[in-house]
Amino acid sequence: MPGTTAGTHPTEYAPTDRTVPTRAADRASYDKEVVHAILDEGYVCHLGFVRDGAPVVLPTLYGRVGERLYVHGSTGSRPLRMTGAADPGLEVCLTVTHVDGLVLARSAFHHSINYRSVMVHGIAHEVTDPEERRRALDALVDHVVAGRAADSRPANKKELAATAVIRLDLDEVSAKIRSGGANDEPEDLALPHWAGVVPLRKGYDAPVPNADLASGIGLPDYLAGE
Amino acid sequence: MPGTTAGTHPTEYAPTDRTVPTRAADRASYDKEVVHAILDEGYVCHLGFVRDGAPVVLPTLYGRVGERLYVHGSTGSRPLRMTGAADPGLEVCLTVTHVDGLVLARSAFHHSINYRSVMVHGIAHEVTDPEERRRALDALVDHVVAGRAADSRPANKKELAATAVIRLDLDEVSAKIRSGGANDEPEDLALPHWAGVVPLRKGYDAPVPNADLASGIGLPDYLAGE
Repeated sequence: MPGTTAGTHPTEYAPTDRTVPTRAADRASYDKEVVHAILDEGYVCHLGFVRDGAPVVLPTLYGRVGERLYVHGSTGSRPLRMTGAADPGLEVCLTVTHVDGLVLARSAFHHSINYRSVMVHGIAHEVTDPEERRRALDALVDHVVAGRAADSRPANKKELAATAVIRLDLDEVSAKIRSGGANDEPEDLALPHWAGVVPLRKGYDAPVPNADLASGIGLPDYLAGE
Repeated sequence: MPGTTAGTHPTEYAPTDRTVPTRAADRASYDKEVVHAILDEGYVCHLGFVRDGAPVVLPTLYGRVGERLYVHGSTGSRPLRMTGAADPGLEVCLTVTHVDGLVLARSAFHHSINYRSVMVHGIAHEVTDPEERRRALDALVDHVVAGRAADSRPANKKELAATAVIRLDLDEVSAKIRSGGANDEPEDLALPHWAGVVPLRKGYDAPVPNADLASGIGLPDYLAGE
């Protein structure tokens, strides 16, 4: 049975009016493992909220711990201030998108991209519990480079006081995935235009040490593969 | 004089309350050339709008023609329907973000990423003029691969009827840029943690022809460099 297991933990997020697309429904997924994998591959999200009635879309870092996403920022930044000020929390939409390839069709109309995205709707709340704040900040650093939180100086009291952490539960969530080649109309297949996919190259170039790096500090193991 | 030239075309967008950041103001730019360069390097934006009082952030393709951005979609998709239905247009925030590198500091607090982003606030309007729609659709295809619009079958009447195009003028616009190494506190410089930048590798892998590509169609010149 989709969406449930023998136990109490469903394997899928329950679809809602706003997570069921009006079209291309075959690209949507509510599978928790699919959603987690997309979220765990990234570290930059686009956080949407409403300010003075108008939408704002802010690129920012995020981290996942189980069924919770965390975003952090200066206590002086606008969305973080808004979360703290609003008792019921701040209504947000958090979107993570990975582009996998460019899809070139014979017809202009069927051009597309291959991508995997996750959209989370919900109410963001400020995190005040010190232990949860620590775990959230570690997760934010480890999303950028796995294993890095343990190899850096943890935030001190002054830094913690300047940092606001907000939490968004994974509850109203959907993934959207497009993969594969170009889907042209049958009558266009013989047109003299190349069709196919140009895959994005993923990865990193050689790490560049800081100019002020103390001598004798080699590249850590977790960066050796980059 | 910043923001003006001898003529009538200012070289910068005029800052507004919502495009002046509350912090890290040194990262903000209103220079039109800077903004155009960031927009022209990308093809995926995150489009934010308000639906039933709640924010929605949708990843979608965009194209730029001069001081206008274009987004397209099925006439049945939600934001496009909303634009058509609302006479005064749909208030949106369109954000484009390029991640350039991971910034690893000795302190967890100063971890960051190098990025270039553009945020556009404004009212999106549906485009009905056939000639402007054609130019917008060409720009959308050419953003994905420069020169591709001329080497594909243009949209036919049926496809044009199924496609909504919306326009957002570049007026209330800002860029935000972070570059360079880690900015640790002076007292942390001697800590035994590696610090520096891991640059993202940009580019594409070898194009993958569609399984149904007609024989004798070689890779076009504009993809030869990929």
